Amino acid sequence: MSDSNTRLVNATELMLHAVELAKKGRRHTAPNPSVGALLVQDGAIVAEGWHKAYGGPHAEIECLRDAEAQGVNPADCTMFVTLEPCNHTGKTPPCSKAVLKAGVKELYIGALDPNPVAQGGAEFLRENGVTVHTGIAKKACESLIADFRIWNKTSSPYVILKLASTIDGKIATRTGHSQWISCEESRKAVHRLRAGVDAVLIGAGTLRADNPSLDARLEGLPEDFEQPLAVVVTRRLPNSESDIQLLRRRASSTIFWTTVAAASSSQAKALRELGCRVWGFSPQGKGIDLAAGLEQLREECGAYRVLCEGGGVLALNFLESGLIDEFRLFVAPKILGDTEARDLFSGRSPLTMDEAIQLRTSESRPSGDDTLIIYRREAG
Amino acid sequence: MSDSNTRLVNATELMLHAVELAKKGRRHTAPNPSVGALLVQDGAIVAEGWHKAYGGPHAEIECLRDAEAQGVNPADCTMFVTLEPCNHTGKTPPCSKAVLKAGVKELYIGALDPNPVAQGGAEFLRENGVTVHTGIAKKACESLIADFRIWNKTSSPYVILKLASTIDGKIATRTGHSQWISCEESRKAVHRLRAGVDAVLIGAGTLRADNPSLDARLEGLPEDFEQPLAVVVTRRLPNSESDIQLLRRRASSTIFWTTVAAASSSQAKALRELGCRVWGFSPQGKGIDLAAGLEQLREECGAYRVLCEGGGVLALNFLESGLIDEFRLFVAPKILGDTEARDLFSGRSPLTMDEAIQLRTSESRPSGDDTLIIYRREAG
Repeated sequence: MSDSNTRLVNATELMLHAVELAKKGRRHTAPNPSVGALLVQDGAIVAEGWHKAYGGPHAEIECLRDAEAQGVNPADCTMFVTLEPCNHTGKTPPCSKAVLKAGVKELYIGALDPNPVAQGGAEFLRENGVTVHTGIAKKACESLIADFRIWNKTSSPYVILKLASTIDGKIATRTGHSQWISCEESRKAVHRLRAGVDAVLIGAGTLRADNPSLDARLEGLPEDFEQPLAVVVTRRLPNSESDIQLLRRRASSTIFWTTVAAASSSQAKALRELGCRVWGFSPQGKGIDLAAGLEQLREECGAYRVLCEGGGVLALNFLESGLIDEFRLFVAPKILGDTEARDLFSGRSPLTMDEAIQLRTSESRPSGDDTLIIYRREAG
Repeated sequence: MSDSNTRLVNATELMLHAVELAKKGRRHTAPNPSVGALLVQDGAIVAEGWHKAYGGPHAEIECLRDAEAQGVNPADCTMFVTLEPCNHTGKTPPCSKAVLKAGVKELYIGALDPNPVAQGGAEFLRENGVTVHTGIAKKACESLIADFRIWNKTSSPYVILKLASTIDGKIATRTGHSQWISCEESRKAVHRLRAGVDAVLIGAGTLRADNPSLDARLEGLPEDFEQPLAVVVTRRLPNSESDIQLLRRRASSTIFWTTVAAASSSQAKALRELGCRVWGFSPQGKGIDLAAGLEQLREECGAYRVLCEGGGVLALNFLESGLIDEFRLFVAPKILGDTEARDLFSGRSPLTMDEAIQLRTSESRPSGDDTLIIYRREAG
């Protein structure tokens, strides 16, 4: 194996570490992207940084500050950054200049900046004598800014759909029994997903069947961790006195999306008195205008990342409306073998395969005993 | 990155190449395992070998012969072999001694020999001063001998189940339309699977629905390529005059598994006159004694590797009987969203998740636009 190959393996691993750093900033950077950066000297990571909050210093600056605090000279180091350093003055001065000024001679970049206003950092640095490598751990770095691309293009949050099924696409037995389909590791992964979004969204069926609290329950969450909002999509509002965990435990962070009529009912009033928000939307297809709900969620609540946890009818509505950016399916190595068991999705009746909803397979990997498959919209 | 890491990456890649060599011998080595070997000098592969046929030279010997033909001295090389060199005299003298005698100083082994009679080669070579590394590309090398483990333990062939479904576990629309669920690459993979087995097995429903010829259609197959046998499992034999591809095109390589009564019917006689074999088995559960069928297939036809291509009822019978060693599921990134669409499996009615058939996820990887997930029996 040649020396350049060795460097590549090494560079990929280091960039993946920068991706992990970037994720620490999630939920606070929007509508900025999550970015991570690090400095390497003699094969060891000597400084780290990540974009911590919108308006605050970018990852490269945080990393250079860390270097200064550690007494490290960036001129003796190689820098890794998950996203091309910005080349314009926004809330902060351009990072490209700061990197150059710090004396960094070699830079590894994961993804190029998709934002036409900010891009050009790589070119600027190359022109000024820095050795720049691009496309390192490209897939992971691109995934990291998939949300940022949506924020740039639309007024919607980035929407992740999460479901769990058996090999044969079932989410419960014929009696509705579903505990547990997925393994412990996958159930933990769902709590990590919840911790990384601003809102968790379910349909009326899931509210009834599971009565979930929709909060992220993980060890090691900071004391001041802000739980995601809970959104329930339902044409029929529940009674405000019913034994619903969301009402009893976190009404003030619960939002109901319902019809315009239901939103002005006495039931809505009672729910509002508990502290809930109740939003009315015009009907669309078999449900309500979900796109409008998402836009209001971003506009009014600053929800930039939303997790939809089903059920199948709501999930299918979102998918058919093209509102799902990322679909994470946990497939448990189990077979029910029962046509009467509950299906992942229902409500359509295609006659030929051409009528199937088409997605794009992004990746698959083990999740404990299960397989996690990540799908994205076909158009990419 | 340290030098030892570089060597490891390198060694893994070289061993995976040896795995590919091993696969060239498939269908001819049973009940011996498929094994591949190669010699590396100064980072380049200078000799290759694989076990070509039962009773013939093992992979190491083929590789050493290739070295001799190329004028390469094995003493200047590192050897890679997917399976521990045998240490006993069977049909051929022990490979461990041949490797030592050839002067190989360093040996990389993928999997250790599970056969108590033949194992000990690694230890013998170490004791005689050869540097031996084990467990290189272990997963791929272990998968390569998964069939060999079954042949050692049972009198059954190694049985692979292959199915293709949508994300939501459907194999056809409500009208039975199924062309195509999986992508072209996955359909090619099925032909590669067929080319690597001695028999392809289907149920009566699949015979009716697809009227398949069950042969491997691949570019580059040798002229004298022997197509796998076709096995149809059915309680009701088809009419010998009906427009069935298997009868019209390859009756002499077609076997029907049916009931004892049907096997002595006039219909069976007519099928036999076409050249088919018709075997009768005692009833078991909802079908016939599949385990007995498999044993007869190995015993009478030398079928050591069998591919079951469904349908769902037959596949479930095999799975419930614990007769599937490897289940390859091609998941297409499509959603039908119709509870009336055809399910992967049917015939069970579990009330709780504990009653699900439990498998073990072995691996997942892309297959063109689809995801291939490989499951194995839970017990491993």
